[in-house]
Amino acid sequence: MININTLKNRREKLASLIHFPIVLWSGKSASKNFKANHYPFRASSHFLYFAGIPLENAAIRLENGKLDLFMDNPSSDSTLWHGEMPTREDIAVQIGVNNAYPLEALKDTIDGVATIPVQDIFTYEKQKAILQRPLSINQESKDIDHQLMKAIISLRLTHDEIALKEIKKAVDVSVEAHKMGIKSTKKCSTEAEVRAVMESYIISQNMTCAYNSIVTVNGEILHNETYHNLLKSGDLLLADVGAETALGWASDITRTWPVNGQFSSSQRDIYDVVLAAHDACIEKMKPGIEYRDIHLLGAKIMAEGLVNLGILKGHPETLVEKDAHAVFFPHGIGHLLGLDVHDMEDLGDLAGYQEGRTRSDRFGLGYLRLDRPLKAGMVVTIEPGFYQVPAILNHPQFKEKYNKDINWDKLQQFSDVQGIRIEDDILVTETGAEILTKNLPTQAEEIEAMMIK
Amino acid sequence: MININTLKNRREKLASLIHFPIVLWSGKSASKNFKANHYPFRASSHFLYFAGIPLENAAIRLENGKLDLFMDNPSSDSTLWHGEMPTREDIAVQIGVNNAYPLEALKDTIDGVATIPVQDIFTYEKQKAILQRPLSINQESKDIDHQLMKAIISLRLTHDEIALKEIKKAVDVSVEAHKMGIKSTKKCSTEAEVRAVMESYIISQNMTCAYNSIVTVNGEILHNETYHNLLKSGDLLLADVGAETALGWASDITRTWPVNGQFSSSQRDIYDVVLAAHDACIEKMKPGIEYRDIHLLGAKIMAEGLVNLGILKGHPETLVEKDAHAVFFPHGIGHLLGLDVHDMEDLGDLAGYQEGRTRSDRFGLGYLRLDRPLKAGMVVTIEPGFYQVPAILNHPQFKEKYNKDINWDKLQQFSDVQGIRIEDDILVTETGAEILTKNLPTQAEEIEAMMIK
Repeated sequence: MININTLKNRREKLASLIHFPIVLWSGKSASKNFKANHYPFRASSHFLYFAGIPLENAAIRLENGKLDLFMDNPSSDSTLWHGEMPTREDIAVQIGVNNAYPLEALKDTIDGVATIPVQDIFTYEKQKAILQRPLSINQESKDIDHQLMKAIISLRLTHDEIALKEIKKAVDVSVEAHKMGIKSTKKCSTEAEVRAVMESYIISQNMTCAYNSIVTVNGEILHNETYHNLLKSGDLLLADVGAETALGWASDITRTWPVNGQFSSSQRDIYDVVLAAHDACIEKMKPGIEYRDIHLLGAKIMAEGLVNLGILKGHPETLVEKDAHAVFFPHGIGHLLGLDVHDMEDLGDLAGYQEGRTRSDRFGLGYLRLDRPLKAGMVVTIEPGFYQVPAILNHPQFKEKYNKDINWDKLQQFSDVQGIRIEDDILVTETGAEILTKNLPTQAEEIEAMMIK
Repeated sequence: MININTLKNRREKLASLIHFPIVLWSGKSASKNFKANHYPFRASSHFLYFAGIPLENAAIRLENGKLDLFMDNPSSDSTLWHGEMPTREDIAVQIGVNNAYPLEALKDTIDGVATIPVQDIFTYEKQKAILQRPLSINQESKDIDHQLMKAIISLRLTHDEIALKEIKKAVDVSVEAHKMGIKSTKKCSTEAEVRAVMESYIISQNMTCAYNSIVTVNGEILHNETYHNLLKSGDLLLADVGAETALGWASDITRTWPVNGQFSSSQRDIYDVVLAAHDACIEKMKPGIEYRDIHLLGAKIMAEGLVNLGILKGHPETLVEKDAHAVFFPHGIGHLLGLDVHDMEDLGDLAGYQEGRTRSDRFGLGYLRLDRPLKAGMVVTIEPGFYQVPAILNHPQFKEKYNKDINWDKLQQFSDVQGIRIEDDILVTETGAEILTKNLPTQAEEIEAMMIK
């Protein structure tokens, strides 16, 4: 949904934070095997935030809340191949632009502008060439660039009404995709077939995948992007699939379900531990609470559950302090969600970490992507997981360090649990938290029931 | 299918054509909104041809038929996130490598090597930096690079048995995807829903799309990549969708069918003209025949058909000589097909155009992508089409030039025909041609029959 007032409001808010002009580039689609065969275009998120729509090979200049657009009109050859496209002037009206110029004019108006480097390397090289200076997101970035990043982060950390509407659209489509995946699994014989069912619904709704889907019986491979395994009775299938709207807003959902429609008792035991952590974390969320504490709460509930099952030995708090939980839950409890699935991760930890904070070198905290107090309007994921990762369990250093904390014989009894993750998208409200993904069941018996129908 | 003997055979054939060492880079996946969110990796086709499998961020060095592999082993962090990956040594065995080294070692062995610039700009910059010279596919390319391109073209122009097996696998999946699209259209209400059905089958077979699908009721927009239109009774739906195998081999198929299951008489009339051109072209194919003559034959049959319908006036040959056919059929009759959907188009016209030939500046010939005599083992597309492109029909220059050749009143009667294309993938055999896509009907009544079931 394009709402000019929202776009103008974002531009004015930025103007209240910085007092120098900025230019943001949209980027260009990347070529695949030859120039005309390209990956689908995805505009830079910072550009999208202020321009509203994905214009390829365009730039915007913002100063005092005013926006100038720089892009070329479609060529006549392009009209032949791509049909009548909106002109620069059409677009200027559509997104509420003050002035619109050909792209060539940009170079005459870049004195003293700040920018953010885009991910697409072609445009990144153009940015450097036109500004005639190096670009970076790190310490060495120019001071005004750094100020710009911080200003944009302060805006994008919480979402306005229009942004939330878009995120909810992406969430609703992803929820339906997951339901279809769960319901169709018994009819599928490979991971690829379940993936096809899920992505098919996203495609049918004119959305794209916000990230490369994970649909795997090897959930312990955290970023598995292969789909060739056969589904076997007794397997758990982990699906981490999320849609992105046409305007670029993301969702991010994971569910784990039994291929044969029924969790084994060992699978169910672990599933309920992960779900308990998931529920406790969401329950605790409200403005002012530190996200890091949510992560540590999730870790503690996981540790408690694993102690109760006899897999871990000792006091949950002590186990978390020594990162024993991270043997089975090695990643963070979640991350920011917005235009990017890891929102603003192009800025490294600038967005995720409150000023003055840096990544921990603790095994159980170092992968945490967000370390800020929660604020109303933030959308984050909550995604605890349990995994038996061979690279961790067989690692001599970990083996030695946690040897006495783990009951290895007991763990054997859970050998049919490779990986379980439950991930929802949560909006921080004034008084607590709203589960945007609430229409997708999390309870084991609800999922089993969906598979019977 | 990886077949070491085939790979070695390709390497030895190359060694018989050139007598200097070469290095080919595989490339790297492009980042989307942030570094960890990337487009699916697609290796450079020249690399794939000799290495057989898509290894990211790798290079191969070929000299006298021997292949050295340069790539890094997965890091321990990568094992955590991506699971156990094959090591350099595993891969060396799998693809029949003589020596395998870390990527870093490449720089010590680049004296006097030829190369081909890859499409991914990150790797392209690396290529230039490591070779310390500019890279180009044009006249200014270094002499040995140019010799290498010509040698690779002479190999890739015709396909060995393993290549053909892969292409046929891609074709078979695409044929099934089209059948499913045709059969499901009556149940779909948007272009996006039909696209979802078709791509879903490709995904379910662990393949990718060889190019961005075209699924549109506006077939006259030749490279339409939007899917938001509703399907209305009376519309024709044009679907140009092709799968690519996991090893990178492509297919490319177009069908056009009526949304309501029955061609109108005007649609059927034009459809049969396009089909007559399609059939005549394939009928004519055999080694030695000039592809350009196939194109001109297609143009003539189209002109003949349009004269018979009263849309064009005059003698078909004369109409083709003055490019009047191209008002309705403005593109070429097809192109090479192989690892790329427009095979070797990364080399500009070097592959498509026989040495000494260049693009025509004629409106009716200039878009032809292939101008060579056919050879046994070539795979090409045959894809005539009829379109009512506003940018052409309303263009003052064309309007004037062809005003007397077109019966504008008659054309009005065909206003429900925006765009029709019929595209098959054809293997040139020793004695003629084999339609690889023959399991997908082309006859209008066969397509209608599929829609009833």
